[in-house]
Amino acid sequence: MRMYDIIRHKRLGLALTEEELRWCIAGYTAGDIPDYQMAALAMAVCLNGMTPAETAVLTDAMMRSGDMVDLSRFGNATVDKHSTGGVGDKTSLIVAPIVSALGGVVAKMSGRGLGHTGGTVDKLEAIPGYRTELTPEEFLTQVEQVGVAVIGQSGNLAPADKKLYALRDVTATVDSVPLIASSIMSKKLAAGAHSIVLDVKVGSGAFMKTREEGEALARQMVDIATACGRQAAALVTNMDVPLGEAVGNALEVQEAIAILQGKGDPKLRRLCEALAREMLCLCHGWSEEEAAGRVTAAIDSGEAFRQMCRWVTAQGGDATYLTQPEKFPAAPAYPVCAPAEGYITHMDAEAIGIAAVSLGAGRATKADTIDHAAGIRLLKKTGDRVAAGEPIATLYTNRPAAVEGATAAYLEAVTVEDTAPAAQELIYAVVR
Amino acid sequence: MRMYDIIRHKRLGLALTEEELRWCIAGYTAGDIPDYQMAALAMAVCLNGMTPAETAVLTDAMMRSGDMVDLSRFGNATVDKHSTGGVGDKTSLIVAPIVSALGGVVAKMSGRGLGHTGGTVDKLEAIPGYRTELTPEEFLTQVEQVGVAVIGQSGNLAPADKKLYALRDVTATVDSVPLIASSIMSKKLAAGAHSIVLDVKVGSGAFMKTREEGEALARQMVDIATACGRQAAALVTNMDVPLGEAVGNALEVQEAIAILQGKGDPKLRRLCEALAREMLCLCHGWSEEEAAGRVTAAIDSGEAFRQMCRWVTAQGGDATYLTQPEKFPAAPAYPVCAPAEGYITHMDAEAIGIAAVSLGAGRATKADTIDHAAGIRLLKKTGDRVAAGEPIATLYTNRPAAVEGATAAYLEAVTVEDTAPAAQELIYAVVR
Repeated sequence: MRMYDIIRHKRLGLALTEEELRWCIAGYTAGDIPDYQMAALAMAVCLNGMTPAETAVLTDAMMRSGDMVDLSRFGNATVDKHSTGGVGDKTSLIVAPIVSALGGVVAKMSGRGLGHTGGTVDKLEAIPGYRTELTPEEFLTQVEQVGVAVIGQSGNLAPADKKLYALRDVTATVDSVPLIASSIMSKKLAAGAHSIVLDVKVGSGAFMKTREEGEALARQMVDIATACGRQAAALVTNMDVPLGEAVGNALEVQEAIAILQGKGDPKLRRLCEALAREMLCLCHGWSEEEAAGRVTAAIDSGEAFRQMCRWVTAQGGDATYLTQPEKFPAAPAYPVCAPAEGYITHMDAEAIGIAAVSLGAGRATKADTIDHAAGIRLLKKTGDRVAAGEPIATLYTNRPAAVEGATAAYLEAVTVEDTAPAAQELIYAVVR
Repeated sequence: MRMYDIIRHKRLGLALTEEELRWCIAGYTAGDIPDYQMAALAMAVCLNGMTPAETAVLTDAMMRSGDMVDLSRFGNATVDKHSTGGVGDKTSLIVAPIVSALGGVVAKMSGRGLGHTGGTVDKLEAIPGYRTELTPEEFLTQVEQVGVAVIGQSGNLAPADKKLYALRDVTATVDSVPLIASSIMSKKLAAGAHSIVLDVKVGSGAFMKTREEGEALARQMVDIATACGRQAAALVTNMDVPLGEAVGNALEVQEAIAILQGKGDPKLRRLCEALAREMLCLCHGWSEEEAAGRVTAAIDSGEAFRQMCRWVTAQGGDATYLTQPEKFPAAPAYPVCAPAEGYITHMDAEAIGIAAVSLGAGRATKADTIDHAAGIRLLKKTGDRVAAGEPIATLYTNRPAAVEGATAAYLEAVTVEDTAPAAQELIYAVVR
């Protein structure tokens, strides 16, 4: 078999065979196939596409290219959740306790933030004592005893994807639906859960800019899971505005606590309930109605919040920060005021995420450190009416020098106009 | 400027700007742009194409990437000829003396053969004493004094093309008309002639398999020359059968002599007359009729043959081999006989070229040496009627061990059937 012929077949628009794809991924992982040949193939895939069968085989081959987490001791009860990345997305902090309180097994690896999106592991580290690194034994034991553990990524999961993604990133071949779908799913499948619920973000703060693109990606990822003997569902959701009312690590933990205590942004609660519902439908085989009813009850009864406390305590965190969230250290606050009277008609979620990074809430490069107290509280969002000079956001930062630039960036990211915008949907579609 | 954006623009189907193309070729030649980015761009060009303006700029940038031959002392009288490569193609040996006998200035660099096609320089080296390497001064002085010199490629012409071609060769991105056209033309333009006549071969022995592909390539090359301030014309010609009656170096020199002496294959003479006519139309501004009449007269009068003798003598060759071609050493001859009675309906020119290489007439790898006496004389060609057991070809070789394999390959390359094939055109189109 020759890489030349594989490139040529894809260039001609042919579907690659399972043998070709597996040979190609094995050779690329081993370093036998040079980057320039893989780059040519990636561009041919971007322009000529891949069939669902090709995409599933590519995913499976990348999943098998490194370590695979063995969660077989939990049978089919394991369930994972993945977001394609948004601004202010703290849903994992909320759905993990809800689902595990209701018997779903959540043995989850999460990422760190880079660029304008935050990472669940960074947020959890805002809780003093919380250990994001556990040994494999500690991880599995905690999952057995508490039903949930969330750690940083460890092991060498899907190295083929890591290498291919780095190449795509410098060859303008990232935005191909089959390549994005196989990249995400190879890592998720290697992480071991039997069921996976995907939150595909669409809009100004997300990689997918249109609803149609989001649905196509969701469909492909769900189909990949099925083809690989797992099960999945996906929500396609609005990321034209940041999610909830907080961007920043401790601020987002506080917001997650509020949701689990029956308070906070109703839209954020609605999205978390939908994600938890889909996870429980998959791992327990419950009907949509049963799952939805139990999720609401778990929040309203306080059981989901108590489960959050058990989880954080088990993982070394100080749960008094959950019961007394005012204990989180606060950074100095700076108001951002509306420049004019009117309605907020648009928010650039990506620009707001970047403003939060400049305040210390995230990393512009991998080497940066995070100030867990830094961030932005969104007081007014798209659709809200504002008076001239009324505070629309609060910046929190220990970097006074960053305030002027972040204020200007925030105002740049928010459009105020005379007429109210049309109401926006939160969940565009459910793909099962 | 970033290579990432250039790749992305081409991926989206946009035309690249002159600035982008020049920056890209300069960076790739200098080694600042890695192969994997150029491979992605090449694939995007293959699938999304290039406009005539882009192709011209790319060619010009590659032409300027290294040495350029300065023929300005000859004004606009210089004229070059290039064949896209065929089997048995000795036309340069014939047209160079015809055109220079009629006042065209032929200061020509030619290639060596590799694979199934032969090279003009290898053929000339069959003439004892002929020097294929001259200093630049010797080269230009001879052109001034005799009107013609043909040497091997020297200098660092179009290194960007050399590097890009090597990359395309391993990434399945060779067969793109704009990339082929710019590759050929960048070298030809760097070689300095004001006018260029292209012989685009089409058929079983050529890279372009269909007449339409050949015409498209011819059109693009002629347009590139115009855009770069030169002038060009192209013939699109039949390479479904080897050209003429000889394949192999000394055999082809002998065939060229025969043509210039008014003997030999009429089809080969017709093609050479057409090429010489187009060259003279361009460099002298003659009408087609005038040029055609003068070409015929130059052959019939013996003036073209005498010019060949002057040229070869000036370049150190022993012209008694031209006047007494029986002096060329002969290799032992082996007949190939028709397996059955019928008509030759098809010849695989590429396979016949490869058979000639196996007899010693060419190089399978760059390190191989050539036996100038080796080759094949084609006694019967497509359209000819043959009797069972009648000789259809003669193999000449000093490698007796190669005869059995070459005989089998030759018979495999020739199809004999009951009914005569339709007559084939020799010149499909003239593109000006």
